[in-house]
This record gives sequence, structure tokens and C-alpha cells, in this order.
Amino acid sequence: MKIVLIGAGNVATHLGRRFVEVGEEVVQVFSRKILKAGELALELGAGYTNGLEGVVKNADLYVIAVHDDAIGEVAAELFASGITDKLFAHTSGATPMWVLGEVASRHRRVGVFYPVQTFSKIRQPDFNKIPICVTASQPDDLAVLMQLAINTSPYCYPISDQQRATLHLAAVFVNNFTNHLFTIGENILKGSDMPFEMLLPLIQETVEKLENGPPATMQTGPAIRHDTATIEQHLRQLEGQSDLQEIYRILTQSISKIRQ
Amino acid sequence: MKIVLIGAGNVATHLGRRFVEVGEEVVQVFSRKILKAGELALELGAGYTNGLEGVVKNADLYVIAVHDDAIGEVAAELFASGITDKLFAHTSGATPMWVLGEVASRHRRVGVFYPVQTFSKIRQPDFNKIPICVTASQPDDLAVLMQLAINTSPYCYPISDQQRATLHLAAVFVNNFTNHLFTIGENILKGSDMPFEMLLPLIQETVEKLENGPPATMQTGPAIRHDTATIEQHLRQLEGQSDLQEIYRILTQSISKIRQ
Repeated sequence: MKIVLIGAGNVATHLGRRFVEVGEEVVQVFSRKILKAGELALELGAGYTNGLEGVVKNADLYVIAVHDDAIGEVAAELFASGITDKLFAHTSGATPMWVLGEVASRHRRVGVFYPVQTFSKIRQPDFNKIPICVTASQPDDLAVLMQLAINTSPYCYPISDQQRATLHLAAVFVNNFTNHLFTIGENILKGSDMPFEMLLPLIQETVEKLENGPPATMQTGPAIRHDTATIEQHLRQLEGQSDLQEIYRILTQSISKIRQ
Repeated sequence: MKIVLIGAGNVATHLGRRFVEVGEEVVQVFSRKILKAGELALELGAGYTNGLEGVVKNADLYVIAVHDDAIGEVAAELFASGITDKLFAHTSGATPMWVLGEVASRHRRVGVFYPVQTFSKIRQPDFNKIPICVTASQPDDLAVLMQLAINTSPYCYPISDQQRATLHLAAVFVNNFTNHLFTIGENILKGSDMPFEMLLPLIQETVEKLENGPPATMQTGPAIRHDTATIEQHLRQLEGQSDLQEIYRILTQSISKIRQ
């Protein structure tokens, strides 16, 4: 399949590498920053451009991996430049599929190719473990995106726009919020001259245990035991840090409602 | 070192196995449940008893791995039974060292041997990765516990009672609360017929990334980007679930105060 990558950030870079690795053809990379476009294009054996009007018009798929709030605008520009009968797919969990067609109004070949993972420059993602969720407005296009997904990862899910919004919300809880709890843990230790490394094996075990069963059945700690003495002791330890007390209280309350 | 294990639950079992593995001598196991005491004792090549008055009096160390609120009482009974000049160490993160001596009043050889990990029956812990924190009221006893810790794990920390309380509080944030966020994520997905497995690689990456730097520098998501549109969209998606809205709001607020 001939693919144009719109964007040269973390998502575009890691997806582009994977596409080439599994034998897809990335024909061109677009980025407003010509150096980034050129660098990624060189690696992928593709052409590049920093103007949307210079994007080739004969690719099978345009993967739009830019910031969420730029997706609609970029799609509209591509459409306006004459690419009116090709498939556009963005890669965002938080963005409805229809922003690809809404602004461009008449464009109907739209879809989403969403890898459920957080990408960073310095870490090599393992696509053999990354779920890919695809959405499309037309059955033929869904088949195209599913084929690409199956090529990219063993875990592929056709989902609706609404399901993806739900998935993204859940991801915020288990990824963004979890990471923040790690930050809080680190800050608490810092105040008593202890290194964050002391907590790492516990954190790793918390995640590895998920392979043995659903998290609710694995819940431990004072909240699930309704151990009021320890809970009150912890709240006293957090005196003067009303933010943390509030987080402690509200999560303890929520845990205490679980029935194991 | 001759060790008596008071308790035959998860902590006692995994510690006992490790002690024997590294060449320590577990001479006896106590549990009120005679079958549990016998089973663990058999495995460790030790004697066993279900009466505290039957605990041998000539061991070097009595490791008290029972429920937090039973520690003081058990120590008092051991003291009353005539074990007045031997080292007692409990294994609890949440319990002050002094409960070992407070009730027994005159006992002064007290300490703590706290492995910073969550233990479950079905999972084999890797002691080569588990930090052990030790505390003791007397320097000689601290040396004894440190020696045992060094034998048990490569990561040993002598800490104060206050530091252990802080560490345990931090552990609640990164282990108990984190696990609850996983439960919330699972519940959100369930409502839209998606399996929790879709989130597992993201969760694993969230933790593996910690090896690249402190969690605050790894924070991603709408809260740290101050992406109000997505935050409001998420809160709308949680309509009718005021508990989750509250958790979302309070964690988002806390993240937005981070300076990366």
C-alpha cells in the first residue's frame, strides 16, 4: 500500500518505521519543519515536502499524525489541494473521525488508525504488543485499515468513534493518572531522603500481577481492608498538603466501595 | 542465624523460603492454624507449634509476620512466655517498631525487617529485586538485621521508624491507588464492551518508562498540556458517575500544577 505520512513527530516516526518494516511503502513524509520531514523520509526511503500543496496525490492512504487540534485543518487543506477521493486516517485517540470530513465537508473516505500506546523519542515501541484500533466511515475503507493494522500488530480491533473516545478516557486513568501517582510517591519519599528506586519493584509487581486476574480482585491496602486507624494515620502524615490529603481521601473512598 | 517465624501467611512463607534458600536456619514456625504452621514448617525443614507458649526460647531472631493489629499482642505473649533477651522483628510497613516493646513494656531488643513488596500466594517474588528496610532500637540489633537483609536482597536500607511510615504512605499511592486506577480503567472499558487487555501494553509502558527518568518528566496527557477541551469532553463522558468525575478533576488539577 502506498502511504503518505502527514507529520514527523513521535507517532509518525514509529508508525512509519513499522510500516516499512512490514513491507508497506511510505512514499512521502510531510512536516512543516523541512529538516524533520527530510530526516524521517531519508530513514524510510521516501520523498518529503514541507508544503501540503506539494503532497503527492496518488497514494492509497494519507496517515495524519499531527497535533489533535491541527487534524481537521490539515485534512481540509489536503482536500482543497485536490486529494478528494483517497482515504485519510488520523491517529488520535481523542479526536472524532469526522473532523477529517467536517471541515472539508465533501470528503467521505475518512477513518482512524489508533495505536493504543504512548510513544517517546528515546524508547523503541514493540508493535507486536501494541493494540491497533481502527474506525472508518465506509466498509471498504475499514477493510483497508484493518489490513494495514493486521500487518502492523497481532492485536487489531475495529471500534466505533464512541468506543475510541471511551478507550482514550480509560487510558488517561491508567496511564496519565497512574504516572502522576508515581510522581506523588517520589515526592513523598524525597521529603524523607529516600530514593524513588525503593518503590520501583513494588510498582513493577503491581503491573505484573495484572496477568493473574482483574485488578479489582488484586486490590490490597488499608482502604479495601477498611483499616480506619492506618487511613487516619496516613492523613495525619499528609498534614499541610491538602492536595494530597484530598487525593488520598477520594481514592480511599472509591476503593472502599469495591466488593471483592 | 536461628530464626523463628511467627506467622505462616504470605509474608512469612516467602520470607521463610528465602531465608532457607540463602542458608539461614528457620528452626520453628508458629501459626494459630496448626495445619498452616505444619505445612510451612515441613517445607522449610523446621519444627512447628500453634501455641505461643510452645515457641522455642533459644532462637537468635523472632520474625513476627502477623496482621498489623496482632503484632503487639503476640510480642507481649512471647515476652511473657519467657523470651525476654532475644531480638524480635516485625515485618510491617505501617506499624511502629515500638509496638513490640510497648505492650511487653520491658522488652528492648526490638526491630523491623520490612520487604518493600506486595506478596501473594500464587506469585513467586524475586528477592534479588526487593528492597529490604531495617530498623532497630539498638546498634547491635541493627547490625544483625542488616546482615540478614544483605543475605536476603542486594538492596538494603537502614531507615528510621518515621521514614518507614513515609515509605508505606508512598507505597499506598503507587501500589494501592494505582491498582484502583486500573480497576477504574477496566470498568470504563466494560461499559463499552472492550476488554482490559487493550490497555495492558500502555500500562506496562507507563512503568517501563520509569527507567528513563523521573515520572514527573514523563507526564503526558490533557492535564499537563492544559488541554481544556479534552478535559471537558472527558468530564462529559463521565456524566452520571460523580465519583469518577471527582477523581478525574482532582488528579487533573494536581497534574496541572507540575512544572516539567
